[in-house]
Amino acid sequence: MKRKLTINFDMDAALLKAADGYAEAAAGHYRTLVSESIPYTGWVSYVNRLKTADIAEINSVATEIRAKCSVFVVIGIGGSYLGAKAAIEYISASFGSYGSKGKIGTPQVLFAGFNLSGTYHNNLLNSIRDEDICICHISKSGGTTEPSIAFLTLRKLLIEKYGETEANARTYAVTDRDGGSLRSEAKEKGYRSLYIPGDIGGRYSVLTPVGLLPIAVAGIDIAEIVNGARAGTEPDTVAQSKRLACVRKSIQDIGKTVEVIGFFEPSAEAFIQWLLQLYGESEGKDGKGMLPVGAGLSRDLHSLGQFFQEGNQIFCETLLWVENPPADIILDEEGGFYAGRHMTEVNTAVKSGMIAAHRNVEIPITTLNIPDFSPFSFGLLVQFFELTCGITGLLMGVDPFTQPGVEAYKKEMKTYLSK
Amino acid sequence: MKRKLTINFDMDAALLKAADGYAEAAAGHYRTLVSESIPYTGWVSYVNRLKTADIAEINSVATEIRAKCSVFVVIGIGGSYLGAKAAIEYISASFGSYGSKGKIGTPQVLFAGFNLSGTYHNNLLNSIRDEDICICHISKSGGTTEPSIAFLTLRKLLIEKYGETEANARTYAVTDRDGGSLRSEAKEKGYRSLYIPGDIGGRYSVLTPVGLLPIAVAGIDIAEIVNGARAGTEPDTVAQSKRLACVRKSIQDIGKTVEVIGFFEPSAEAFIQWLLQLYGESEGKDGKGMLPVGAGLSRDLHSLGQFFQEGNQIFCETLLWVENPPADIILDEEGGFYAGRHMTEVNTAVKSGMIAAHRNVEIPITTLNIPDFSPFSFGLLVQFFELTCGITGLLMGVDPFTQPGVEAYKKEMKTYLSK
Repeated sequence: MKRKLTINFDMDAALLKAADGYAEAAAGHYRTLVSESIPYTGWVSYVNRLKTADIAEINSVATEIRAKCSVFVVIGIGGSYLGAKAAIEYISASFGSYGSKGKIGTPQVLFAGFNLSGTYHNNLLNSIRDEDICICHISKSGGTTEPSIAFLTLRKLLIEKYGETEANARTYAVTDRDGGSLRSEAKEKGYRSLYIPGDIGGRYSVLTPVGLLPIAVAGIDIAEIVNGARAGTEPDTVAQSKRLACVRKSIQDIGKTVEVIGFFEPSAEAFIQWLLQLYGESEGKDGKGMLPVGAGLSRDLHSLGQFFQEGNQIFCETLLWVENPPADIILDEEGGFYAGRHMTEVNTAVKSGMIAAHRNVEIPITTLNIPDFSPFSFGLLVQFFELTCGITGLLMGVDPFTQPGVEAYKKEMKTYLSK
Repeated sequence: MKRKLTINFDMDAALLKAADGYAEAAAGHYRTLVSESIPYTGWVSYVNRLKTADIAEINSVATEIRAKCSVFVVIGIGGSYLGAKAAIEYISASFGSYGSKGKIGTPQVLFAGFNLSGTYHNNLLNSIRDEDICICHISKSGGTTEPSIAFLTLRKLLIEKYGETEANARTYAVTDRDGGSLRSEAKEKGYRSLYIPGDIGGRYSVLTPVGLLPIAVAGIDIAEIVNGARAGTEPDTVAQSKRLACVRKSIQDIGKTVEVIGFFEPSAEAFIQWLLQLYGESEGKDGKGMLPVGAGLSRDLHSLGQFFQEGNQIFCETLLWVENPPADIILDEEGGFYAGRHMTEVNTAVKSGMIAAHRNVEIPITTLNIPDFSPFSFGLLVQFFELTCGITGLLMGVDPFTQPGVEAYKKEMKTYLSK
């Protein structure tokens, strides 16, 4: 059975007709992307260029790491960690339980470097001090403030615990092949390293060693992720990306300024964070873009639900739905009205009820049906959204592969630190 | 030293002047709230009416629970759990580490009932099966679908594990004093119960047994939370609530449709979820309201930051800043540019840099400075935001204490389930 995405568009026919009008432009933009003539579009064909030997190398580093630690700390910010966290939480949902502590052979993967809370880092250090630790700094340059500082504090712990030589053997790097301070330090101290392709930006990098190494350390089959992503480059999925890009552009045209991205599975929460970065950082420029906002369901129907139903109608909704969840619960005879029902059946009714209620107030709704929680589905989903995002950005007339606005606060921050 | 909130408004003088124009109306609305002549405004004076004996009763139930379980599962949705989760994560940041497993005497507090994922619940059951378990169903009526179904599955586990009698002794309820299916079941089966005041709605209920029981089970001093909340009813804090309400109304007047609520401490993430419900459900009606959106910092400066800086300028920002975090990290001589600096100092530079960069593109920014992570500060913060929200809603001309829109999806859902 071929595992595919399916999409439902619940919105006015006029919107879908307007989207038809963008089909030709979208096809042109897709051809431009495939030609890789725009900088930082190496991700378009990367999974098809990736060789069995490349995957084997990543798995070999991961195996080495798994053999020597109970806790593996990934240090990165933005695209350097969101994709790996998304994959691990999404796919681990099928593992059958929560919160088992890591041990040598099956380490727990933790993340640091995405904030500067002394409290967070102090608590993190206290929590892992007695574990067997490996760390991995993921950064193209090595110069970003948040991960640099987290790396300093974790290196200090490693050196105190193991001495310099062993600390170096427990430190890994995923960085640029040619330049940057992390590359120099890795060379000097002998950190085992993997490389970030030069033509792929952070938020498009989860299917490179940036994401694949931590995912492999978590015990997930990365070759299957790559297989799924390859399916995302096939004509039928590409056609879905183009179509969704046209619809998203048409929704912007009618003045919607927020895209609520809802999910019915708590384990997809980190995936949504990844998607918020992909959309927000690619499309939010030149005064344009729909602000992407995450919503957990049914949770947020009992918090933001009032706003969605009756508040300021500035948004559209994109819902993520997993069709074949790995586990379900059947309610027995004690269940009253729910007796004999599967929980998934009731969850489906919540989804259908929400769509009906929100259609009553004319919110445009897109539902993306995902086969399951498998690595294959995850890879497919990533490639699908990256392509959808790239085409949408080009339809909007922005460059979806730069992020000039991210520098603004860094520049101001450095002024404060230099005082 | 008196622990107080302070507020900075970084925005155009014209906006602050416009806010002055609402001062008299806000004062009138505050008097209306204090008179409790509007339904569901019991929360305004609740903390001042709460007696030492009431707090002692909650603590006594909590002590009983702590003595017999390693895992305490709170079953609720929306206002029935967001406040407790917010308090426990916020205040626990000062405990010094993460993720220690619960044991009898100091149980871990988990939450269920806010989604209908079979995968989530199956994994939850597998994770706690071998623990010593108590559960607590928190619901005014007992009839809400999500928590009802979670309660059925957890009750089944308890009965399998302990038999009916002991399962009943390990089941607690926080519900309406007079009616509802949960009240009837608790009476019949002898669940030890606490009561939700009839004149307080879910999202305003964290300072009642709804929030205080789970918080006390987590080992937090609830009397100090109540003391903080009482400080929130004193004239100086009330004046701040009135002022912020006027400013928020003025920001809406200039056409901003989204309020980004940012925090610089990961442990405040659940607090933001609580605030999103408070604002969104209170203000999002009659086609009005700013959609509240959470942002984790600096994390989201490397994802949504591009959008904030250069995208569609539909939003204002409200930043939460903890002035005296319990722990810090000092970077040693290895730290290069950062050597000798405290992490909190760099975090402060991030905040200042972000404010400067966002002011360059004229985003209105409010910064709320919170003394620390103490129970007192948490209580103060809750009472402050509840009052601010109530006054803002009345200035907008909506009823901030109803949520008619939440019923819409439930009605549609029941149609699907009856098919």
